[in-house]
Amino acid sequence: MSDDTFGFHVEHTSHKARAGLLATPHGEVATPAFMPVGTAGSVKGVTPDQLRAAGAQMILGNTYHLMLRPGAERVADLGGLHAMMAWDSPILTDSGGYQVFSLAHRRTLDADGVTFQSHIDGSEVRLTPQSAMEIQRLLGADVIMQLDECPPGKTSHEEVAAAVARSADWARRCRDAWQAAGRQSAQGARQALFGIQQGGVFADLRARSAAELVALDLPGYAIGGLSVGEGHEAMCDVLEHIDEQLPSDRPRYLMGVGEPRDILAAVARGVDMFDCVLPTRNGRNAQAFTWAGRLRLRNARWSDDKGPIDPQCGCYACRNFSRGTLRHLFMAKEMLGPTLVSIHNLHFFAELMSAIRQAIAAGTLAGLSGQWVAGMYQDLDAGD
Amino acid sequence: MSDDTFGFHVEHTSHKARAGLLATPHGEVATPAFMPVGTAGSVKGVTPDQLRAAGAQMILGNTYHLMLRPGAERVADLGGLHAMMAWDSPILTDSGGYQVFSLAHRRTLDADGVTFQSHIDGSEVRLTPQSAMEIQRLLGADVIMQLDECPPGKTSHEEVAAAVARSADWARRCRDAWQAAGRQSAQGARQALFGIQQGGVFADLRARSAAELVALDLPGYAIGGLSVGEGHEAMCDVLEHIDEQLPSDRPRYLMGVGEPRDILAAVARGVDMFDCVLPTRNGRNAQAFTWAGRLRLRNARWSDDKGPIDPQCGCYACRNFSRGTLRHLFMAKEMLGPTLVSIHNLHFFAELMSAIRQAIAAGTLAGLSGQWVAGMYQDLDAGD
Repeated sequence: MSDDTFGFHVEHTSHKARAGLLATPHGEVATPAFMPVGTAGSVKGVTPDQLRAAGAQMILGNTYHLMLRPGAERVADLGGLHAMMAWDSPILTDSGGYQVFSLAHRRTLDADGVTFQSHIDGSEVRLTPQSAMEIQRLLGADVIMQLDECPPGKTSHEEVAAAVARSADWARRCRDAWQAAGRQSAQGARQALFGIQQGGVFADLRARSAAELVALDLPGYAIGGLSVGEGHEAMCDVLEHIDEQLPSDRPRYLMGVGEPRDILAAVARGVDMFDCVLPTRNGRNAQAFTWAGRLRLRNARWSDDKGPIDPQCGCYACRNFSRGTLRHLFMAKEMLGPTLVSIHNLHFFAELMSAIRQAIAAGTLAGLSGQWVAGMYQDLDAGD
Repeated sequence: MSDDTFGFHVEHTSHKARAGLLATPHGEVATPAFMPVGTAGSVKGVTPDQLRAAGAQMILGNTYHLMLRPGAERVADLGGLHAMMAWDSPILTDSGGYQVFSLAHRRTLDADGVTFQSHIDGSEVRLTPQSAMEIQRLLGADVIMQLDECPPGKTSHEEVAAAVARSADWARRCRDAWQAAGRQSAQGARQALFGIQQGGVFADLRARSAAELVALDLPGYAIGGLSVGEGHEAMCDVLEHIDEQLPSDRPRYLMGVGEPRDILAAVARGVDMFDCVLPTRNGRNAQAFTWAGRLRLRNARWSDDKGPIDPQCGCYACRNFSRGTLRHLFMAKEMLGPTLVSIHNLHFFAELMSAIRQAIAAGTLAGLSGQWVAGMYQDLDAGD
């Protein structure tokens, strides 16, 4: 079923921005790429067919959620995450670390891992670098992530330094476990391990973290610990250095981002991959992204509006449904409203990434980025 | 966009059962037909594309819900119900009467109509034969229903007789209003008005009701006031007489049915059309219909089951998802579970009706019905 290769090639650069191709056993991904999030075995509210039609290339699954329910062994029994989700294209799984630190109860951290209570049933669960690898081997994603420690925003330099040291040590343990497993999933497909840079907003710790990871010669590198409340400027300051800190021939993945303005700033600084719940979460809450600003579709001003969310958009929702109908579906609490606006937003993010790739190839990204941000952050619901 | 004709032709008969073709301005419907219910402007959880792919030919919209929210004028402003729902195939709307009697608060009935409080915002609303026609003219369905009075089960002969008299009077008023409007929707398409037989379980009242409606020479006739707790046998007793009571060249529609066993019994007695929330409501509750019985997909016995709901089924859910995955989606409260099982159930009902039509044409319905019922009413979850 799958080509057993993994590779990354930069095809165009424009200043620090790169457009390339990520090859995985489940197909190729044009970068910069945005990965919709399928937390618990489903990108909420959309079928894989709708997801593909909306332009998604690669999706993310959450190890934390899947290990707790239905369990990694059960996912493997059901044929792995690709089979379970009916998604035969690339998948990335995170390591579970971030959710342990944000969702789980009664966390205890030690040198070898983290013990926590499941937020689902209160049971005690332990996650180690080795078990994070084994779980992701069972899930079977194309790209797997090291276990890391992600301190909250506003953590002191001393504590972030400790998290950086621990994350580097865990990266090495993850690499050893991944190599021992033959770099293969339980389904027999090649898996690529990415390390995760930590270091908060401290430039020295970011540099140290990157250097320690790069020494492990991993297939890709993620930038973790951002989009945790530090703000756009602080994020940009950290990203300013990644082009020199991380090797140019490996994909760079900014975890949990996000906002179109952040994506544009990160691409300009050399990031290749993104993931965020924004298109689906905001879609479920009736907020639709457009190049000319966001629509809050519960707003009464759209009640009689016969036009689509965006007249320029070719998504299924815009080809078939008016703003007035979508508003009605949300007011009537019909499931179809969240599904349709999620489809629209997923399509918007796919279009945004496609426009970014074209602009990098054309050398026009810097100029267009500013225009796009100016358009996208208008308030379309103003006056209500 | 539409052929302006309405017609009905019986193509095959097998004892009292009929297979035919209903022609409407939005296309043809092979009968016996099952109409999925799109209560509030959406067949819950499925897009019109998914609905069509599942084999639905014609759907039902609820006048009561739509008149309260978003309002019939607003539906007309948005282009009518076909445009609003992105469903360019036939639609039938009920008159609102049934929901007024089952959902609304503080109902007051008089000779000219019914006044009630909206279950949504408590506002006082009045529905008359004339306004039921006007609202359905604005909604724009292909088939519209008279306003009737549907007494609850266990109502006395005297009270049912009064409801029959009132319904007959309202049928005449509806016909007059429909004719005065040129038998056309606000969107300019031909609409067909169906009368509704009442009479509860009383044979004399059923006969009287039918006779009064048939005298009005309407394009079709519905059998109302069944599936309200009277039971399968009492329903069959009423249906036993419809073939002689209702003209053979008009479609016969059994409202709110329903259960495959009831559909089969009704088809054998000469019914052509059905509607019910069963496929979508049960789908949302993880219950999947198959020819070999129903699966309750939250049942732990399906946790590791790699097979589809039904190996013989060609629906999107069965082609892509295992029972184990579907169970997980329900346990994790993922919207995709209700959507997928609704799609499966809609496909099952479409397949059931297709098999019924083929059996009528082949003259094999009587024998097959018994086999189908024996299969379908096994308990597949037994032993758990």
